[in-house]
Amino acid sequence: MASEYLGYIRTEKYDKEPSRRKELIVNCEKPFNAETRPDLLPRSFYVPNDLFFVRNHAPVPLLKSEEEFRLRVEGIVAYPLLLSLEDLKTKFRKHTVAAVLQCAGNRRTEMSRIKPVDGVPWLHGTAGNAIWSGVLLRDVLIAAGVYTNKALHVEFEGADLPPEEENRRGYLASIPLNKALDRDEEVILAYEMNGEKLPRDHGYPLRVVVPGYVGARSVKWLTRIICKMESSDGYFMTKDYKYLPSNMDFNNVDWSSTPPIMNLSVQCAICDPLPDTKLSPGPYKIRGYALTGKGEHIVRVEVSINNSKDWQLATLIKGEKVANKEIPKRVTSGMKDWSWVLWELVVYMKPPTVLTARAIDSACNTQPEQPLWNLRGVMNNSWHKICVYPLNSAL
Amino acid sequence: MASEYLGYIRTEKYDKEPSRRKELIVNCEKPFNAETRPDLLPRSFYVPNDLFFVRNHAPVPLLKSEEEFRLRVEGIVAYPLLLSLEDLKTKFRKHTVAAVLQCAGNRRTEMSRIKPVDGVPWLHGTAGNAIWSGVLLRDVLIAAGVYTNKALHVEFEGADLPPEEENRRGYLASIPLNKALDRDEEVILAYEMNGEKLPRDHGYPLRVVVPGYVGARSVKWLTRIICKMESSDGYFMTKDYKYLPSNMDFNNVDWSSTPPIMNLSVQCAICDPLPDTKLSPGPYKIRGYALTGKGEHIVRVEVSINNSKDWQLATLIKGEKVANKEIPKRVTSGMKDWSWVLWELVVYMKPPTVLTARAIDSACNTQPEQPLWNLRGVMNNSWHKICVYPLNSAL
Repeated sequence: MASEYLGYIRTEKYDKEPSRRKELIVNCEKPFNAETRPDLLPRSFYVPNDLFFVRNHAPVPLLKSEEEFRLRVEGIVAYPLLLSLEDLKTKFRKHTVAAVLQCAGNRRTEMSRIKPVDGVPWLHGTAGNAIWSGVLLRDVLIAAGVYTNKALHVEFEGADLPPEEENRRGYLASIPLNKALDRDEEVILAYEMNGEKLPRDHGYPLRVVVPGYVGARSVKWLTRIICKMESSDGYFMTKDYKYLPSNMDFNNVDWSSTPPIMNLSVQCAICDPLPDTKLSPGPYKIRGYALTGKGEHIVRVEVSINNSKDWQLATLIKGEKVANKEIPKRVTSGMKDWSWVLWELVVYMKPPTVLTARAIDSACNTQPEQPLWNLRGVMNNSWHKICVYPLNSAL
Repeated sequence: MASEYLGYIRTEKYDKEPSRRKELIVNCEKPFNAETRPDLLPRSFYVPNDLFFVRNHAPVPLLKSEEEFRLRVEGIVAYPLLLSLEDLKTKFRKHTVAAVLQCAGNRRTEMSRIKPVDGVPWLHGTAGNAIWSGVLLRDVLIAAGVYTNKALHVEFEGADLPPEEENRRGYLASIPLNKALDRDEEVILAYEMNGEKLPRDHGYPLRVVVPGYVGARSVKWLTRIICKMESSDGYFMTKDYKYLPSNMDFNNVDWSSTPPIMNLSVQCAICDPLPDTKLSPGPYKIRGYALTGKGEHIVRVEVSINNSKDWQLATLIKGEKVANKEIPKRVTSGMKDWSWVLWELVVYMKPPTVLTARAIDSACNTQPEQPLWNLRGVMNNSWHKICVYPLNSAL
């Protein structure tokens, strides 16, 4: 059953999906969920649009035409708005931010080795850095006359229809109004990704990008913004994307015990070589990414090639060195940093061995050695350990 | 040799030290360094002034009289100021904040069990929560006309004379101007601690309190504020209080490799029972504290009584329940939280066993299971593990 809504054709069928690159690792076809092959990630500071990981919760909604698209801004505001794409592009200042997005479930597969968890079995390929352009959410909320003495949260609604959301509402998430109104937090309504129109899988024509937060709050196919007293009661705020205590499983789960996940925590992954690669002894360049939240930056990445016994400092690669594109001045001059860093280290490797990588950020946050098991398998930021084997290994 | 300076008698001798409570655990007499006996900490939400841990780097400077005290505000400002205590109290609005201070070296002794480290051998008693009152640093900097287009850091100078600082300058530290100017960060120049004049050991008559940062940046006996382009090059910013990589020791240390520590990371400690306590089997209330930085709050504390195998949720105790004093409204209504939490859990204990506690904060930061060894033994926020023994144990 399809319906029309603010310029979209919303559907619960998978007959209008976009075409996708074969290089993506597909974990689920319906809804489409695919990660970037991890060894492709460190090849460029900004992940190409058609290689960026895709996390969908429903069929991709189809826009009838750009002219018919409308964004509603409402709730606790003095002047509810109905904005066209043209309005957004001409009535508000364009803002560009380089920001990494990471799924809360990135590296879930490693956690499930401790005990099974519920969710898409991601490797470490659901993280990606991109340049996002659009308008500051702050500017739109001020234009709508948000009542800052009453509203505390900003809810976003997508045009997609996840079966979990009740009353046929679209995908829902909210962020604190404080975050939305802070210019330095750079929350934007994005219509461009790496200088091009948003791809359909990434929210065409308009999505939220919330720097420093897990991807689940950067709502795609944005149709409504609602200023509220309370945080969103949508399914993905109240019954998913929560970092539950380790003693809770489906028999005793208490969703209200735990707030919804917002901030990214410090993360680090070895991308090249891939896990379980067979290699002959010799010099090798290990490469990966590291990221964190709260606008902090990665201070260092430490790598071990002998199963976490001795550690070496990896070289951190800043955006300027590997980006093909010109980086807008604002992106590099800000005090807060929303990008990932890439890193590399040349070592002499003698398989079989275990490679480990760990990072520390500028707020002195570190990673746990082992995953902290939780029912939904989210926020695994343990030291990243992979095995490499000799060329002639039977494994 | 003593000298006079802005109302202080500065000395390098220890003949004018204040009297101190015998309950403090003294780790060093000259300079005086003492921590609170950990089991006393959870007895009140705000630590009494005379039980609060003391971290001095030199003799306590002696104020000649409150009338003679002066604070200089200078550097990249339009109107350098020379302020008396009376000026601060009458010309600026009073601001009160509840904030925990923690020494960067808290729990160093545990880390030194992995490999020796350099520094005062603290247990887990160099953390304390208090109500601080004074004026917002922001208001003083604006009154001095700080040039926000040029200055990037605010340096503080104390009246104490640590032998490490060159050119007989006082203790030095700096914080980013962004932090200082942000009203929500609540950086204050404090003249009261828990409603009383600052004790001499805690900076009488005026100290900085930087909520969310390690104690080393909350400069005591404040005499000068200097707005600068660069962060402070003082000893305790450049050659101490750094979280060095684990592969650096005195033979290969590169201080420039690592930025000075600023933010507190998520921390948790078992205060009662004390480590290695002998107990008969029975019901027991375990108590402790947990804290974090960046204005985040503690989401939960998990406790294990069987050596990290099974975990139970502790009850978090908010300030209102245990504080004797009225908490100013601003303290409880703010979005950011700078206080610690106390926690407790009733269990049936059968010694010998290992108790473990760990916390998670609202930004999804967690603690490592083992200390991450570093040369100065700072920022140990590993899971807190203590042993308890049977009453008749020979240990």
